[in-house]
Amino acid sequence: MRTYLDCIPCFMGQALRICRMAGCDEADIKGAMDEISVFLRDFPLDRTPPEAGMHVHRILKRHTGQEDPYRDIKRKSTEKALSIYPRLVKTVETSPDPLLTAVRLAIASNVIDHGTAKAYDIDREVAEALDTEPAIFDGEALRARVDGADRILYIGDNAGETVFDRLLIEQIGKPAVFVVRGVPVINDATREDALQAGLEKVADIVSSGTEAPGTVLGTCSREFLDLFYGSPLIISKGQGNYEALSEQQDRPMFFLLKAKCNVIAGHLGVNVGDMVLKGTDAAKDRTRD
Amino acid sequence: MRTYLDCIPCFMGQALRICRMAGCDEADIKGAMDEISVFLRDFPLDRTPPEAGMHVHRILKRHTGQEDPYRDIKRKSTEKALSIYPRLVKTVETSPDPLLTAVRLAIASNVIDHGTAKAYDIDREVAEALDTEPAIFDGEALRARVDGADRILYIGDNAGETVFDRLLIEQIGKPAVFVVRGVPVINDATREDALQAGLEKVADIVSSGTEAPGTVLGTCSREFLDLFYGSPLIISKGQGNYEALSEQQDRPMFFLLKAKCNVIAGHLGVNVGDMVLKGTDAAKDRTRD
Repeated sequence: MRTYLDCIPCFMGQALRICRMAGCDEADIKGAMDEISVFLRDFPLDRTPPEAGMHVHRILKRHTGQEDPYRDIKRKSTEKALSIYPRLVKTVETSPDPLLTAVRLAIASNVIDHGTAKAYDIDREVAEALDTEPAIFDGEALRARVDGADRILYIGDNAGETVFDRLLIEQIGKPAVFVVRGVPVINDATREDALQAGLEKVADIVSSGTEAPGTVLGTCSREFLDLFYGSPLIISKGQGNYEALSEQQDRPMFFLLKAKCNVIAGHLGVNVGDMVLKGTDAAKDRTRD
Repeated sequence: MRTYLDCIPCFMGQALRICRMAGCDEADIKGAMDEISVFLRDFPLDRTPPEAGMHVHRILKRHTGQEDPYRDIKRKSTEKALSIYPRLVKTVETSPDPLLTAVRLAIASNVIDHGTAKAYDIDREVAEALDTEPAIFDGEALRARVDGADRILYIGDNAGETVFDRLLIEQIGKPAVFVVRGVPVINDATREDALQAGLEKVADIVSSGTEAPGTVLGTCSREFLDLFYGSPLIISKGQGNYEALSEQQDRPMFFLLKAKCNVIAGHLGVNVGDMVLKGTDAAKDRTRD
């Protein structure tokens, strides 16, 4: 997905929030925002938002002097999710369709996103996810792919969501690789966050190698790219990964996300707040089975 | 009130909305946003947001080629408000305290603001205004000033609100001057908009002379400044006027507004969405009577 003009004020607001959280004074913040505004002026809009985000967050790390300003927030998000994990397992296992219930919960957990300005309540999201119809839900196509796949590649998004990702991987019940970011960026999950969520019990944890807040293929490691081009089923979680990978329609991939901004919602043809499980062309093409 | 870092992404978003409404193509919009980002980089933050807004809207007028992109929206806002005007009159006149009821309705009408990104429903706002306690309400101080004043200066904000301003001026029942912007800026009321609302029936209409979206004194006409420094009671409507005039604590002035962004809410010590009637030091100082 390309970068939209709407992303420009959004990046500026994100920069402001991160600098404040990192405890910068106003002159520091203004310096960072000024540098980001110059960068964005020259950034080609036909490239994806996470590519811009990668450079924006490099600038922020230099100005704040902090590699991981969201560390505490990430740890607390994961702790909170772990505290409701036993209840989530019960909800899934007693539901008429455990796989697709786990999918819904995994989508709901995508509200745990500190890249956007919105507040969230994870307990309310879980309740709503079970009662609300997703706007796009390629559930049967996913089920067919799960049945036919001997392994899956699961590209994670934010810390805390990782607990819900673990639940879905358990329901899928196939050998899995869980992909984390190469370095901390916003509250995206790193290896440390995945370990806190217990993902090593259900998957191999592999870094994509990127420092972008999304899986920008040109910045990923050879190890990740081999997995990406070789896996019979890919699950891509969240907005940043959708923005980076939405053009990869020839990969058997499903995007799981909650649409949290007008740009993403518009690109998907849904409303802000809607839940989405969307297969690529390849994922839904039964002639490839 | 000074300009806050939060105003920077907000100005960028406002520019984008206005350019889109004016029908600009993406390259034009990008050009306008780039020019605005350069301007904002050099704008001293100790000056007020409407001063920045004045320059931002000059840039937008040049890029869009449109002097008044909100003309249709303003006309419709005023028509809508006029359509409920007879009902509003009845509500005020049958209430136990017509003056302060008219004040509440005038505050509620301040949602008719296209400078912010928020949607609004004027009928709902009217109902809520009668049921909700304002966060700051210097009602008795206003009543005392109204009783003692032989004339008032009423500085208007947005078109459509003007119908509610007329209602309040009628309740005050003193000779009045209603102040409009010197040129169209966002949906702020100009002379044309005030006339459509019927304000000439209850007040003399005078332009402040400014082209800013707020009463930036250094850009106002001599005629307006004489009125501003000579009036025994000033009513200042809306966020833009508050931003421009909040330091003028030695004028007998009341700010009527709905807090529509975090910056204004923080400056006033209220929550976003709260209604405010706030007198200056001079307005509340009874020793001056």
